[in-house]
Amino acid sequence: MTDEAIQRPGGRTARVRTAVLAATLQELGERGYAGMSLEGVAQRAGVHKTTVYRRWATKANLLLDAIATLAESEIPVPDTGDFVEDMRAFARTIAATITGQDGGAVVRGLFLGATESAAVRDFLHGFWATRFAQVRPLVQRAVERGELPADTDADEVIKHLGAPLYYRLLVTADGITLADADRAADAAVAAARAGVFARHPPSRPKR
Amino acid sequence: MTDEAIQRPGGRTARVRTAVLAATLQELGERGYAGMSLEGVAQRAGVHKTTVYRRWATKANLLLDAIATLAESEIPVPDTGDFVEDMRAFARTIAATITGQDGGAVVRGLFLGATESAAVRDFLHGFWATRFAQVRPLVQRAVERGELPADTDADEVIKHLGAPLYYRLLVTADGITLADADRAADAAVAAARAGVFARHPPSRPKR
Repeated sequence: MTDEAIQRPGGRTARVRTAVLAATLQELGERGYAGMSLEGVAQRAGVHKTTVYRRWATKANLLLDAIATLAESEIPVPDTGDFVEDMRAFARTIAATITGQDGGAVVRGLFLGATESAAVRDFLHGFWATRFAQVRPLVQRAVERGELPADTDADEVIKHLGAPLYYRLLVTADGITLADADRAADAAVAAARAGVFARHPPSRPKR
Repeated sequence: MTDEAIQRPGGRTARVRTAVLAATLQELGERGYAGMSLEGVAQRAGVHKTTVYRRWATKANLLLDAIATLAESEIPVPDTGDFVEDMRAFARTIAATITGQDGGAVVRGLFLGATESAAVRDFLHGFWATRFAQVRPLVQRAVERGELPADTDADEVIKHLGAPLYYRLLVTADGITLADADRAADAAVAAARAGVFARHPPSRPKR
């Protein structure tokens, strides 16, 4: 709970709501959704736990209200007159949001379970290194056949192939169809051909 | 625990290990990492909980051992002689794995928290629909300027822009640099230009 939240006008009910939702984001960021409790949120917000139970009843309601409050804020959508510039600026906005204070707490709280643990994170790095090494020849053969630029970073090709599928599963909670898998593959192919995954990429993707 | 696991040769220790790791994957899939317990795994595996505590001590160790066992299995890496075909086949393998029985349990257990809840999942669908609607004009303007095919599906462009960033955060547990953000943007741009996100995409990405 910040001083700003306490002093915001709107009466006691609005102040309590602001304090509880701010505390929810902080608890999410520190403990994750699974580790978060209504009691912990109440304590951090400096309100009685029955207040939180009466108004929100469940952790899920608390989470949804906190996200909805964040979602009310408009995000800056670039309009530079150039698609590459717009896309790059927007990608940087996403990156800053999902690694930042409030949005980052929500993302971590929603999606992180075991990746909160340093031991599991280290293990994952090893696991993925092994996986990428297994798949790397698929890309290297395409380079040898002259289908891709010689300095293509195979691991980046593989990551960009898998990312849209995990994204559907974990982030947007959508299903995955064969058409989705094909689209993910085709997108990585087009980007690889355009030199995006070159170790020294062109300053803009080749047309 | 499957009958196959019970009957596998290798003595009692190996049988217990196989049963416990199979039970771990099942518990992960049903309860997620946060909801999983050593007691629950022991009960499901039909072994005494002190056996599990003595050998693995923590949930994290149990999880790592279960993943390591899965990781020992080689994944089929396509080699059709054609990059588009190879990439599509591999994307389908990933899709099948992360939505399937064992690999799916690990992915869900590792990464899912609140998306296990139908209420939160429904909310997420609404949340993302709002976000995509906010960003859609960025893509539509590029279509109007003639930078992209007329029937480009703006939401797919936006999803493929964000996916590699969430993937680094949630799946590979890597950091996100500005170069990573730019690469994600450039990859989505190249794929969009190649017509991959057209509502009626070409049968292969345009060169």
